Amino acid sequence: MNTRELVELAQQLRVDSVRASAAAGSGHPTSSMSAADLMAVLLAHHLRYDFDRPDHPGNDRFVLSKGHASPLLYSAYKAAGAIDDGELLTFRQLGSRLEGHPTPRRLPWVETATGSLGQGLPVGVGIALAGRRLDRTDYRVWVLCGDSELAEGSVWEAAEHAAYEHLDNLVAIVDVNRLGQRGPTRHGHDLDAYARRFQAFGWHTVEIDGHDVDAIDRAYGEAVSTKGQPTAVLARTLKGKGVEAVEDREGLHGKPLPDAEEAVAELGGPRSLSVHVQEPPAARLLHAVREEQVRLPRFEQGEEVATRDAYGKALAALGAGRGDVVALDGEVSDSTRAEAFAKEYPERFFECYIAEQQMVAAAVGVASRGWVPYASSFAAFLTRAYDFVRMASVSGAGINLVGSHAGVAIGPDGPSQMGLEDLAMFRAVHGSTVLYPCDANQTARLVAAMADLDGIRYLRTSRGKNQVIYGPDEEFEVGGSKVLRSSATDRLTLVAAGVTVPEALAAADALDREGIQVRVIDLYSVKPVDRLTLRQAAEDTGCLVTVEDHHPEGGLGDAVLDAFLDGRPMPRLVRLAVRTMPGSAAPDQQLHAAGIDAESITAAVQLLVEQAVVR
Amino acid sequence: MNTRELVELAQQLRVDSVRASAAAGSGHPTSSMSAADLMAVLLAHHLRYDFDRPDHPGNDRFVLSKGHASPLLYSAYKAAGAIDDGELLTFRQLGSRLEGHPTPRRLPWVETATGSLGQGLPVGVGIALAGRRLDRTDYRVWVLCGDSELAEGSVWEAAEHAAYEHLDNLVAIVDVNRLGQRGPTRHGHDLDAYARRFQAFGWHTVEIDGHDVDAIDRAYGEAVSTKGQPTAVLARTLKGKGVEAVEDREGLHGKPLPDAEEAVAELGGPRSLSVHVQEPPAARLLHAVREEQVRLPRFEQGEEVATRDAYGKALAALGAGRGDVVALDGEVSDSTRAEAFAKEYPERFFECYIAEQQMVAAAVGVASRGWVPYASSFAAFLTRAYDFVRMASVSGAGINLVGSHAGVAIGPDGPSQMGLEDLAMFRAVHGSTVLYPCDANQTARLVAAMADLDGIRYLRTSRGKNQVIYGPDEEFEVGGSKVLRSSATDRLTLVAAGVTVPEALAAADALDREGIQVRVIDLYSVKPVDRLTLRQAAEDTGCLVTVEDHHPEGGLGDAVLDAFLDGRPMPRLVRLAVRTMPGSAAPDQQLHAAGIDAESITAAVQLLVEQAVVR
Repeated sequence: MNTRELVELAQQLRVDSVRASAAAGSGHPTSSMSAADLMAVLLAHHLRYDFDRPDHPGNDRFVLSKGHASPLLYSAYKAAGAIDDGELLTFRQLGSRLEGHPTPRRLPWVETATGSLGQGLPVGVGIALAGRRLDRTDYRVWVLCGDSELAEGSVWEAAEHAAYEHLDNLVAIVDVNRLGQRGPTRHGHDLDAYARRFQAFGWHTVEIDGHDVDAIDRAYGEAVSTKGQPTAVLARTLKGKGVEAVEDREGLHGKPLPDAEEAVAELGGPRSLSVHVQEPPAARLLHAVREEQVRLPRFEQGEEVATRDAYGKALAALGAGRGDVVALDGEVSDSTRAEAFAKEYPERFFECYIAEQQMVAAAVGVASRGWVPYASSFAAFLTRAYDFVRMASVSGAGINLVGSHAGVAIGPDGPSQMGLEDLAMFRAVHGSTVLYPCDANQTARLVAAMADLDGIRYLRTSRGKNQVIYGPDEEFEVGGSKVLRSSATDRLTLVAAGVTVPEALAAADALDREGIQVRVIDLYSVKPVDRLTLRQAAEDTGCLVTVEDHHPEGGLGDAVLDAFLDGRPMPRLVRLAVRTMPGSAAPDQQLHAAGIDAESITAAVQLLVEQAVVR
Repeated sequence: MNTRELVELAQQLRVDSVRASAAAGSGHPTSSMSAADLMAVLLAHHLRYDFDRPDHPGNDRFVLSKGHASPLLYSAYKAAGAIDDGELLTFRQLGSRLEGHPTPRRLPWVETATGSLGQGLPVGVGIALAGRRLDRTDYRVWVLCGDSELAEGSVWEAAEHAAYEHLDNLVAIVDVNRLGQRGPTRHGHDLDAYARRFQAFGWHTVEIDGHDVDAIDRAYGEAVSTKGQPTAVLARTLKGKGVEAVEDREGLHGKPLPDAEEAVAELGGPRSLSVHVQEPPAARLLHAVREEQVRLPRFEQGEEVATRDAYGKALAALGAGRGDVVALDGEVSDSTRAEAFAKEYPERFFECYIAEQQMVAAAVGVASRGWVPYASSFAAFLTRAYDFVRMASVSGAGINLVGSHAGVAIGPDGPSQMGLEDLAMFRAVHGSTVLYPCDANQTARLVAAMADLDGIRYLRTSRGKNQVIYGPDEEFEVGGSKVLRSSATDRLTLVAAGVTVPEALAAADALDREGIQVRVIDLYSVKPVDRLTLRQAAEDTGCLVTVEDHHPEGGLGDAVLDAFLDGRPMPRLVRLAVRTMPGSAAPDQQLHAAGIDAESITAAVQLLVEQAVVR
């Protein structure tokens, strides 16, 4: 396209953004209009993409980090022939694929859900990493960012990661339109302020007038030809560009234009340009190759092994058996034991340093390219990435997250290092799976099983060693449980998981010596829970006592409820959990202080028996 | 102190760090040894602090951002005479104040809990902001950071915030010891790499040899005399400095020295230097002044008002009545309605731009100085700051967090903007309070009530308008509830909160017309819950149906369980919640699709009656 045609295309994108938002009665047309020229030039001259084959391995990848500018994205889809005008006007309606913020759940051309700002670039870095180090294909990753979102620290985690990995296949296009939602940004139109920051982190930068299509064209060309470092194209633009009533004005964020018809006329009226997007170059998928069988590590019953050690070994075994498994870690791989994988498969291991948001984003990025990521840190520090986990579930991304050092059982390091909210956090994520193994063989099986599930999968591991309870051939279904003690005279059921399983077993044995029989269930699958087994236990024993190394809210105690929420008769419930703010102490002292060790469980059950609460 | 004495003091800090860790059998002596000279010079020459009066308003504030170097901190306390050698050797033991990572819950000289990296500087920015804009006192804030933690984006949110606010009362001292937990950092000893970044964000930087006490002394002096911008002192150090067996070596993070006795000898043996820390200058507390009475806004019953609007008005009213209330927002004050406060009290309003971690950290910082912060963003985006919320609770910080635009009720913007995990997230925080009002008068009362609670207080507000249900004189106890429909023939109880309250009322009325009476409870206090009222409803009606605009896990449905966890007979339970991943649609369509509108509730109750699940 020549200059005039590019200008026309950009105007069409503006017109269609205005029209879509007007039809919806909501949306962000002004945020779309500022970036219309940036999008037009990308679409017409630089993006290589087959809209009929979104899974084409050679396709460039485009991420709309400023996800609220979805009218612009959908207008671009229309110009490229991927959707028609009728569909464009379904924007934001019930059942439409064209949501307020784009998601790959509904649209095959969207790489990752955006709408929580500061996430598109971090995920883009993950995709670019996959391109360079896994797919080894020359696709480029283009990320259109807003200027407001550069205030998010996650953007600078991404900037650091991208430059360190020399991702010259990554281009950040920053639409510096000066205005955030509520008013001016910190730096207004000071492109240099952004350039200094990106340069300091090791990026190449280009500063341009974002409404000069020739300048944009040259900037993209410069980005593509820059080697050894990512490029940020910093574009000075005007929000609402092209319509005087809204151009560069405050107070108009996230609103349809006051008079859409007049605006369309001012923009030169509707157009029906279609743009031929370049075909991607031929490319092939690398990771289709899989070996025959995964040979999981086997542990002897009675052996003392930490579940985090079992995780590392199982992950390495998975790496041997499956070429599509990759691992990421947040600078604690010696603790999470991801190092076992890193040593064997360095080419599939990504050190993310202490930047948990970027780690999860990178996992989402590589998962979008078909890889199966396992990302690990301390359970406590995964809270840092909760918004990324939430958005990954909006994306429908399939990622495995592993939190080690869970609970008070870590001992003297104190509460800052203890994951005591992680089960609640991951259970509340839509479609998630939450697993909490108690021994090494169980861990190994679950690590393998989680690889092929949908959505967010979370595995909680423990710091300390404990006895292997199960044999190496025991199988563990996701959504299952194990009944470890059971008799016809059980007076209640102890429901435990992870570190509280051995405590519950010891309590059951102590109680048995006093003539009190109790059932013990290992509820390793915290979500989904084994409804049938819990219901049977409720029916047989009438009372469930949950024991968990987690705060009382949202964890194991709440999870058992999932078996009883259809109005059926309920068992009595008692919850043992961490109700105080722990300090430093040895692991056994911590479990005792929290009232979740064998002695505390025994005492609690004795009290229930004395009070005749149980049968 | 002269150079020789400073060197001796630093050696003493090393010796005591080694001894404390040896006594504990765990800890981070090598991370302490790298920063010993930095700490010695600060303590002896620059810090102004009265250890007998940690609440002295003129005290400088010291934050150990690299919280794992707690042996160094405690050794400094000993040198300053604040603790004795006996206490130093209780490090990490059960009941000791000297935890693995320092917390203000136990030690009066600690400003904020650290141990999750990248949080000390953000909180330090909050304290420095309080000093400049609220306390208007000349205390300085010194933050000792590690180099590894500079990979956290939150550090760059803090850097941006501090420079933008020209916080020349803030000094970041970066202990660049080259080694993280698992190995070398990205930038090793390249001080320039860090200097470029800090400078790009607007900081003054000084690069020094971190083991040259005179250079350190000059650098601190330069920091103190630098006006208009914060200073980062970038110090090249060696991890484990002074003991050959561990100096600058990998694989020794977080471990006591292999031979402590030999190490102490190599360091020149124990010393018993005491250091006289400078007195703080005279200063006075500003915010002790309070006006007589808070005049909350009053809304008419039947009026249509969004709870977020009521929040803004109530906050402004609180601002008028209380000089200690401050507000922070993440660049969405026009949406959260914090703008109502910002317009009236700009000197007590902090615009944090799109940086939710920094917003919460700043709130923790100003709270540590005795102010009462209200920090707001969309409920969805508060997930971004979960690790900061978690650590705030470890600190025992008293902060108010307000999440607007909760749930599917926001309508067409789609799932990225919907808080659907926030109740779970905040409930799981130790000692938290979680409030979810359904109308404007209730909101206003709760906004005022939460100001004086302990710990993390969360208020959930809604985007859309709804009818005011309660009169302006109605009172709402935290931990209470309101029974809105009740009769002797209630067949079950609907438990609702926020947007589902009007839906539950409409359902109750529709059911009543069919001859089915149901009780309706407005459970606005989600944590703590009103146990007595829920138990009475269970006894009277036998079945609780919870209705919530939140994912099923960890929210209202789990909250009611808190009334029944002592083994008492349980009511039957049914949960209506958001079980799907929503798309875009109008608010009423969203509530219907999720099965939580009046029609869905009515249908669910009818089914329970037909199936004879209820009486």
